[in-house]
Amino acid sequence: MKKLSIGVAGLGRIGKIHLDNLIELSNVKVIGVMDPDSVALNYAKEKGVKSTFKTFDELVNIDQLDAIVICTPTNTHANYVEISAKLGKQIFCEKPLDLDIQRVKDVLNVVDKSKVKLMIGFNRRFDNEFRKVKTSINNGEIGNPHIVKITSRDPSPPPLEYIKNSGGLFLDMTIHDFDMARFIVDKEIDEIYVKGEALIDEKIKKAGDIDTAVIIIKYIDSTIAIIDNSRKAAYGYDQRIEVLGSKGMIQANNVKVDNNKLYNQNGIMSSLPMEFFLERYMEAYKIEIQHFVDSVINNKPISVTGFDGLKSLQIGLAAKKSLLENRPVKINEID
Amino acid sequence: MKKLSIGVAGLGRIGKIHLDNLIELSNVKVIGVMDPDSVALNYAKEKGVKSTFKTFDELVNIDQLDAIVICTPTNTHANYVEISAKLGKQIFCEKPLDLDIQRVKDVLNVVDKSKVKLMIGFNRRFDNEFRKVKTSINNGEIGNPHIVKITSRDPSPPPLEYIKNSGGLFLDMTIHDFDMARFIVDKEIDEIYVKGEALIDEKIKKAGDIDTAVIIIKYIDSTIAIIDNSRKAAYGYDQRIEVLGSKGMIQANNVKVDNNKLYNQNGIMSSLPMEFFLERYMEAYKIEIQHFVDSVINNKPISVTGFDGLKSLQIGLAAKKSLLENRPVKINEID
Amino acid sequence: MKKLSIGVAGLGRIGKIHLDNLIELSNVKVIGVMDPDSVALNYAKEKGVKSTFKTFDELVNIDQLDAIVICTPTNTHANYVEISAKLGKQIFCEKPLDLDIQRVKDVLNVVDKSKVKLMIGFNRRFDNEFRKVKTSINNGEIGNPHIVKITSRDPSPPPLEYIKNSGGLFLDMTIHDFDMARFIVDKEIDEIYVKGEALIDEKIKKAGDIDTAVIIIKYIDSTIAIIDNSRKAAYGYDQRIEVLGSKGMIQANNVKVDNNKLYNQNGIMSSLPMEFFLERYMEAYKIEIQHFVDSVINNKPISVTGFDGLKSLQIGLAAKKSLLENRPVKINEID
Amino acid sequence: MKKLSIGVAGLGRIGKIHLDNLIELSNVKVIGVMDPDSVALNYAKEKGVKSTFKTFDELVNIDQLDAIVICTPTNTHANYVEISAKLGKQIFCEKPLDLDIQRVKDVLNVVDKSKVKLMIGFNRRFDNEFRKVKTSINNGEIGNPHIVKITSRDPSPPPLEYIKNSGGLFLDMTIHDFDMARFIVDKEIDEIYVKGEALIDEKIKKAGDIDTAVIIIKYIDSTIAIIDNSRKAAYGYDQRIEVLGSKGMIQANNVKVDNNKLYNQNGIMSSLPMEFFLERYMEAYKIEIQHFVDSVINNKPISVTGFDGLKSLQIGLAAKKSLLENRPVKINEID
Repeated sequence: MKKLSIGVAGLGRIGKIHLDNLIELSNVKVIGVMDPDSVALNYAKEKGVKSTFKTFDELVNIDQLDAIVICTPTNTHANYVEISAKLGKQIFCEKPLDLDIQRVKDVLNVVDKSKVKLMIGFNRRFDNEFRKVKTSINNGEIGNPHIVKITSRDPSPPPLEYIKNSGGLFLDMTIHDFDMARFIVDKEIDEIYVKGEALIDEKIKKAGDIDTAVIIIKYIDSTIAIIDNSRKAAYGYDQRIEVLGSKGMIQANNVKVDNNKLYNQNGIMSSLPMEFFLERYMEAYKIEIQHFVDSVINNKPISVTGFDGLKSLQIGLAAKKSLLENRPVKINEID
Repeated sequence: MKKLSIGVAGLGRIGKIHLDNLIELSNVKVIGVMDPDSVALNYAKEKGVKSTFKTFDELVNIDQLDAIVICTPTNTHANYVEISAKLGKQIFCEKPLDLDIQRVKDVLNVVDKSKVKLMIGFNRRFDNEFRKVKTSINNGEIGNPHIVKITSRDPSPPPLEYIKNSGGLFLDMTIHDFDMARFIVDKEIDEIYVKGEALIDEKIKKAGDIDTAVIIIKYIDSTIAIIDNSRKAAYGYDQRIEVLGSKGMIQANNVKVDNNKLYNQNGIMSSLPMEFFLERYMEAYKIEIQHFVDSVINNKPISVTGFDGLKSLQIGLAAKKSLLENRPVKINEID
Repeated sequence: MKKLSIGVAGLGRIGKIHLDNLIELSNVKVIGVMDPDSVALNYAKEKGVKSTFKTFDELVNIDQLDAIVICTPTNTHANYVEISAKLGKQIFCEKPLDLDIQRVKDVLNVVDKSKVKLMIGFNRRFDNEFRKVKTSINNGEIGNPHIVKITSRDPSPPPLEYIKNSGGLFLDMTIHDFDMARFIVDKEIDEIYVKGEALIDEKIKKAGDIDTAVIIIKYIDSTIAIIDNSRKAAYGYDQRIEVLGSKGMIQANNVKVDNNKLYNQNGIMSSLPMEFFLERYMEAYKIEIQHFVDSVINNKPISVTGFDGLKSLQIGLAAKKSLLENRPVKINEID
Repeated sequence: MKKLSIGVAGLGRIGKIHLDNLIELSNVKVIGVMDPDSVALNYAKEKGVKSTFKTFDELVNIDQLDAIVICTPTNTHANYVEISAKLGKQIFCEKPLDLDIQRVKDVLNVVDKSKVKLMIGFNRRFDNEFRKVKTSINNGEIGNPHIVKITSRDPSPPPLEYIKNSGGLFLDMTIHDFDMARFIVDKEIDEIYVKGEALIDEKIKKAGDIDTAVIIIKYIDSTIAIIDNSRKAAYGYDQRIEVLGSKGMIQANNVKVDNNKLYNQNGIMSSLPMEFFLERYMEAYKIEIQHFVDSVINNKPISVTGFDGLKSLQIGLAAKKSLLENRPVKINEID
């Protein structure tokens, strides 16, 4: 069996996760990595990766490279995807492709023409808890979905520097929930209304962003979704989905650190949800990258496409417009 | 100890509950009831009530009557409250006072001048689960409230005839949630946006109403609330509240029929929430009417005032306007 | 409809509960009460009971008295039941009839001859949570029962004075669990082995009793039960049952004070079980006494008979013997 | 850093798990494996293990071998441990060392003299849920332990052939619970009483074994433990611990397949516990073997010693004696 030769570009937090998971796959050979930082490259060397580079060009131009996993900063994504596509490399790219919708469309055109596969890193689609919700809905266990509720809260805000360049809460955080809203019931979104505030940190407000938001989504068929976001839930990372349908309701609840319960005179104490996305979605990242590898090797459809990335961005931009203008915004107003 | 002499007007479902609860209070004497229906009057007679009448005037004009509990149809409330107030009777009236905001204001003026007490029947304020949420917030256990979430779903829609006269979902059902939204964090509401659909029953649509709704509320201080409603949750009556604050989160969950769990090869089955409001709020009704009686006897402030009734109506009308015009509506647009 | 004329003897904690519940029944008239204490009698007078007595004889000899509810101290039970039976009064008596097995047998003989009904106050049989476990088993939902587990723990030990006269943990506390063990699977017990210690309070040990115990019961058909007891669970009253069967498992869990959950950085806190038996079994007491009244009025079988009382006592005495001799004891060794 | 050179003997279900986990450790080199079956050896070859043998002698005699992991059939353990110890190899051996207590003592003597480390494979000690219970107890969160309750049930019985050679339920299954009982409160056991039956399968009875058991354990300090076992819980693998102490109670509950809840008109369905020990204890196996490796490399004490293996066997044999003679048996009766 021929192994898939893969390169990993960008060895930050997510890049290292993908690298580790790829190394464990028996049908993959990680033949090179790229990162401007020597310490990061050493991490890969210790894991047995032979070729390490400081520039993307060096990595992507390795002849025998079949596929590339792009985990570099957001503002490089579009460029690197275009380069890779033109070289005929299969592409996994972390979200988002770009914050500019026209740029994303252009990149997707290049990818289309090059006939390579492009997968976008919406890892939550591969989470066991959420997958089972989707399966339950697909199996008709709750009938027709009427109300989708997504709770998505971080344990603490990212650094201010990050917020200033991320495109703001709707593009750096809620974008996952927008994708989930489409994924979980397999329907496109028609209109969005948001209400957002900076209730947690004055500095976030000064940086032009919000930290608390609630969102109403109308799908094209009148199903409704609600999302609520916070950049800081004191009790930790909160990731829940609830879907009410004509025949019942299905809930994905938080995954706790453990299932212990301590009873004393003050009450019954149980443990908190897993600390943050690295813990909660550890398994999802494994399944995600495995899906990419399998799709490439067996030439099967990718389940999170460039189009999915485009839609989430479009919804995110509509959300920003809604916040600014305090009115419901049709998704197709963003073009 | 002198007992409070009370009359109960209207012996429908709620009227009977109040009658039963009043009879059990040691500081109350139910001296008369009124209902156009003889069967209903017999119900009271069997409970030991001596004076039974077919008209409100007969009941309210009993000299020794201290207080009146009004549970007649909505369209009689305003009139009966005015009559009672002018006669100097203390008043408990089921919500809403009226569906017309000017009429409500006029009635409240009459009540104000007459110096009698008026309590509006928002029973959920007296529910143990919700009370403890409020207490927890008051005690600072979750810090400053950021996001309030209210889930309120009925097990099945009311009769179509009821819907046609009720003022619609926002005035017959969500009005409880509007009151709860104000009550739970003790803040006034500034603006509302709703999205509603008739997803459950075509006939509800034809009757000009909706059966599924989600609502975003902005309080005057930027706290945000979400309400989600359904006229039919297949699994029963769903009454939950969740408040996220700067220091934590507090949840009031459903009260189940029992706490049993059945494990078999298909999964772990637990019991459904209590069937409907009569079961779920049985204790709340007792505490509610006891609060009215105590307030009157000890001349203490009523905790659910005519003003509270007015505000809920105003919010309900703002919700209707938002649905119609698909835009956020300021509460003070309704006047 | 003729009302049942009932007298209540003994107005301690339990006597008052029965009195209150009887007063609310529409087919009952409480025509008299008895207690040596005037304050207790005043309690009844305020509730509207006309005849109050200081001696049992006065009460039981009222001609029109149909039935008597005996809640006096344990050492009077046998005597009072005999007197009542000979006078042809229907009898409800709190457990136990007596601590001496021969005395109990003699009393049951008298009752048998007099043809009156005798119900023993094992209130837990009427608890909603446990009833549903029994129903589930009866419906075959878990197949054949293999292992029954009963957890029964008090929030704090009774007064030492009580312990000295109660017959000890197995007769004052576990006796409820012995009855439950028989009731829940409808099977007689063959053999018992216990292990008990005084781990909570030295004074309990000095009083010749234990405060912590675990018990293995073998039914006549080889089903097995485990009971664990503590006189002091720091987190409150703990009343659970779990039955493993060939097809599944059913659990009755604790009923909590409320269903709230508080999330903060320390964990997720939920509320404690209801404080003690008065709260937890409030509804059960109502259903229990109603069952007695209905059985008498409609001449239907009593569901907790003198025989049930006898069996629990027998098992309790076998438990004491097992503790003393550190060996499994056959129930029929106690005679 | 020098890597520890390890060999794995026996590539059945557990052997493969240890092999996989060892391969992932950066401070380990698996230099050889042994199994009589070629297919099993191929499994190791594909994982990159160079030296594969059909006999234990070949493997253990590799010069550079530092440590050996023994997962061969039970009846070979004692022999292989002795051989390894005499050759100065560090030893990890699956439980039990042997079913004969004298043989175990002899082996432990050999190990003692050879100064090598010996770790016994009680994997549950490394389970996250149970570890946290122990930590909680160590931290004094529940005060002095009074009652320990261990529930341990398999989803289905092992093959009859296995049962015939395993030493029976107490030695093949409960032995884990005996070790847990000692581990969780760090106390030695004084006396045991068991009640066991074959309620699930007649064939198990004919094979001289039982499939359902409850056990009372008295520790040397009068703390009490209860264990309940079943070879077949219809709802799957059930692994719970509950410890009641003077200040509270701590529970380790089952780990479910997921945390979803499905609400419909029949009830609220949640998912079953993880299917069997491979799923439930997957992480525990990793931590276990890592502990062995770390102890060897850093010359630190092993946390599950040969003495622990000896004690569990002794308790298991006492349990068998108790079942046979239907009486409490002192652990030191087994010698």
